[in-house]
Amino acid sequence: MSLIVQKYGGSSVADAESIKRVAKRIVETRKAGNEVVVAVSAMGDTTDELLDLAHEVAPIPAPREMDMLLSAGERISMALLAMAIESLGHDARSFTGSQAGMITDARHGAARIVDVTPVRLREALDEGAIVIVAGFQGFNRDTKDITTLGRGGSDTTAVALAAALNADVCEIYTDVDGIFSADPRIVPNAHKLDRISSEEMLELAANGAKVLYIRAVEYARRHGVTLHVRSSFNNNEGTIVYNETENEGAMEEPMIAGVATDLSEAKITVVGVPDIPGKAAQIFTIVAKTGANIDMIVQNVSAASTGLTDISFTLPKSEGQLVLTSLRAEQEETGFKALQYDDQIGKLALVGAGMRTNAGVSAKLFTALFEAGINIEMISTSEIRISVVTRADTINDALRVVHTAFGLDGDTEAVVHAGTGR
Amino acid sequence: MSLIVQKYGGSSVADAESIKRVAKRIVETRKAGNEVVVAVSAMGDTTDELLDLAHEVAPIPAPREMDMLLSAGERISMALLAMAIESLGHDARSFTGSQAGMITDARHGAARIVDVTPVRLREALDEGAIVIVAGFQGFNRDTKDITTLGRGGSDTTAVALAAALNADVCEIYTDVDGIFSADPRIVPNAHKLDRISSEEMLELAANGAKVLYIRAVEYARRHGVTLHVRSSFNNNEGTIVYNETENEGAMEEPMIAGVATDLSEAKITVVGVPDIPGKAAQIFTIVAKTGANIDMIVQNVSAASTGLTDISFTLPKSEGQLVLTSLRAEQEETGFKALQYDDQIGKLALVGAGMRTNAGVSAKLFTALFEAGINIEMISTSEIRISVVTRADTINDALRVVHTAFGLDGDTEAVVHAGTGR
Repeated sequence: MSLIVQKYGGSSVADAESIKRVAKRIVETRKAGNEVVVAVSAMGDTTDELLDLAHEVAPIPAPREMDMLLSAGERISMALLAMAIESLGHDARSFTGSQAGMITDARHGAARIVDVTPVRLREALDEGAIVIVAGFQGFNRDTKDITTLGRGGSDTTAVALAAALNADVCEIYTDVDGIFSADPRIVPNAHKLDRISSEEMLELAANGAKVLYIRAVEYARRHGVTLHVRSSFNNNEGTIVYNETENEGAMEEPMIAGVATDLSEAKITVVGVPDIPGKAAQIFTIVAKTGANIDMIVQNVSAASTGLTDISFTLPKSEGQLVLTSLRAEQEETGFKALQYDDQIGKLALVGAGMRTNAGVSAKLFTALFEAGINIEMISTSEIRISVVTRADTINDALRVVHTAFGLDGDTEAVVHAGTGR
Repeated sequence: MSLIVQKYGGSSVADAESIKRVAKRIVETRKAGNEVVVAVSAMGDTTDELLDLAHEVAPIPAPREMDMLLSAGERISMALLAMAIESLGHDARSFTGSQAGMITDARHGAARIVDVTPVRLREALDEGAIVIVAGFQGFNRDTKDITTLGRGGSDTTAVALAAALNADVCEIYTDVDGIFSADPRIVPNAHKLDRISSEEMLELAANGAKVLYIRAVEYARRHGVTLHVRSSFNNNEGTIVYNETENEGAMEEPMIAGVATDLSEAKITVVGVPDIPGKAAQIFTIVAKTGANIDMIVQNVSAASTGLTDISFTLPKSEGQLVLTSLRAEQEETGFKALQYDDQIGKLALVGAGMRTNAGVSAKLFTALFEAGINIEMISTSEIRISVVTRADTINDALRVVHTAFGLDGDTEAVVHAGTGR
């Protein structure tokens, strides 16, 4: 008997009809002879509605109480899902994060999982029940308080349960058919990937691919959990996210897995930095104190005549003003000349484990962009990724030409569902 | 320092504005130098909305999951209330039923409290925090499952916390000014009672007074908790529900505390029952098996010529058909002639501890009704109560004439708020 963990997001359980549909799918999995554990998000817009209420009663809601409030959302969806399954004649039991043994640290709103002790889940499975677990939430042992895991929390719940229960696979249900070589809304003939390594998936997720949260992929990779990303609207096979070790020597990896784009970042350039040791460290120490998430960093070669250099970096737009303010406050001490802020950038990332052993990938990428008249403003590379920054209004064109240049176009157009995702 | 337990019902926390208003009142109580523990119901219609959802996904929702679902309602209201208090600059912490140590039996949907272990509440109070507890919900130690207490659950939560924490008073906030000598919507010059004994309150609650649930009054009486029923819309003193022992010899009790009416019952008459020993037992064993809540029972004197008698009893209309069906199924064995069902009855109950030592109360009651042309169909009495059944369409007239006859009319008209109660 296999043990399958399934995760359903908010759009999959948005109303009573959706919940009944998901219940049927879960029962089918059970009938096929599997043990089933389900992690479920709050229904549709519940979380947003609760957030609105919180801000109506308190300008800055207390974090402990915010977690208490938000955790009600999954409690509703999981109980309804369990009821729907029971009415189909199968034993089902729902468990909150704390009942499921999802132990976290005490960081309210962004708690990290520190241990998973699914004793009650294992008991329920042994008694033949289908187990439904609240996604997104946990419990701190010291404070005895409810916590929530933050963005991507339900994916992470599912993966953590799969790891702790030694599940055969963790199925992430979403409103698209799987992971695509590029966003099918922009590249209509993007093709669905049958398989992708977790390393590649990490790079895609970190560079704008929205289907999976980077955190869940990291957790899966670290604990050897195989993911299956698939649609809750049909029975098609989706995309398997496998761990490299499983795959070693088994097959040639395709050179390129996919291309991701991201319009959520801005670029800050620190102009006229004295080119002496320790200046970069000084600047990024200031930035680090703001807690901002720096992505790409590029330092130009110093012009010998001036002894000054420019340092550019990208970061989420939402963190731009905070970082600018912090840098300005220390301009005199740091000695730079000026700050430039640019929020009209787009980032494109080409990801593929096969890059490691294939020369000429950069050249092909730059040529394709050049021939399309798209200017490259920043470049950054890892072993399995090349990222470039362009003007924001050229990013979709860039995506299409790169997708074509690397032979990723499929024969048919991808089917895109109307759902808004999670 | 006094410890005050306060209970706010769903209409007092129906939206963000109401929650902020309640938060201010709680903070005022804290500022006056009291320790404060609050039991709160789910916001406005939340419970009904969750019930609707449950019935959409499952015709007969599993009771365990129903409790899991419904308990989300108080989790939302209590977190919002705690946030609102914190934003006023006071430490506040919310606790679920299980966190508050509200231990119950395992009867989902109608659990009884078996123990209260408010360790975490006492700790939070000692640290200076205002404590907010989810009303209506508990936790079973054996199954480790969430339970709910059923109707009147939040009142019961408040009283149980007051008993366990040895509170000085348990304030039940509602949308009326307190307990009245009669329903002010029917008797405009009904007067608010300053004090009423828990025994009298029990009789009023059992006979249709809606302000307090009988279960909470019983709990308060058994554990010596003083209740203060008051409005959440003003700062007026409400009605103190005291325990008889506190009051012994302290004051003369007024003869009559109040009059309650109830239109929710129906009358079943079992016609032509053989007047031989054991027949009543046989009939009420059949009725008991249905789980129906029988209120008044009257057996007429047997007509000597026939050897047959009639037995009438009243019960909630909602249980009428079930009991009729059960009785019909055993008609042959029981030997009665026919069943009559009447759902057009009204019940009036006159309650007062002073009745014990005052003769003539019954005579005065019957005379008042006779003079108003109102026919009495059934009579039942206890030591401190006389109940009569009349036609439903005469019950409001009956209430007014009895209220006047016993000198209960006040000088001014009572203020009635628009809220829907509890």
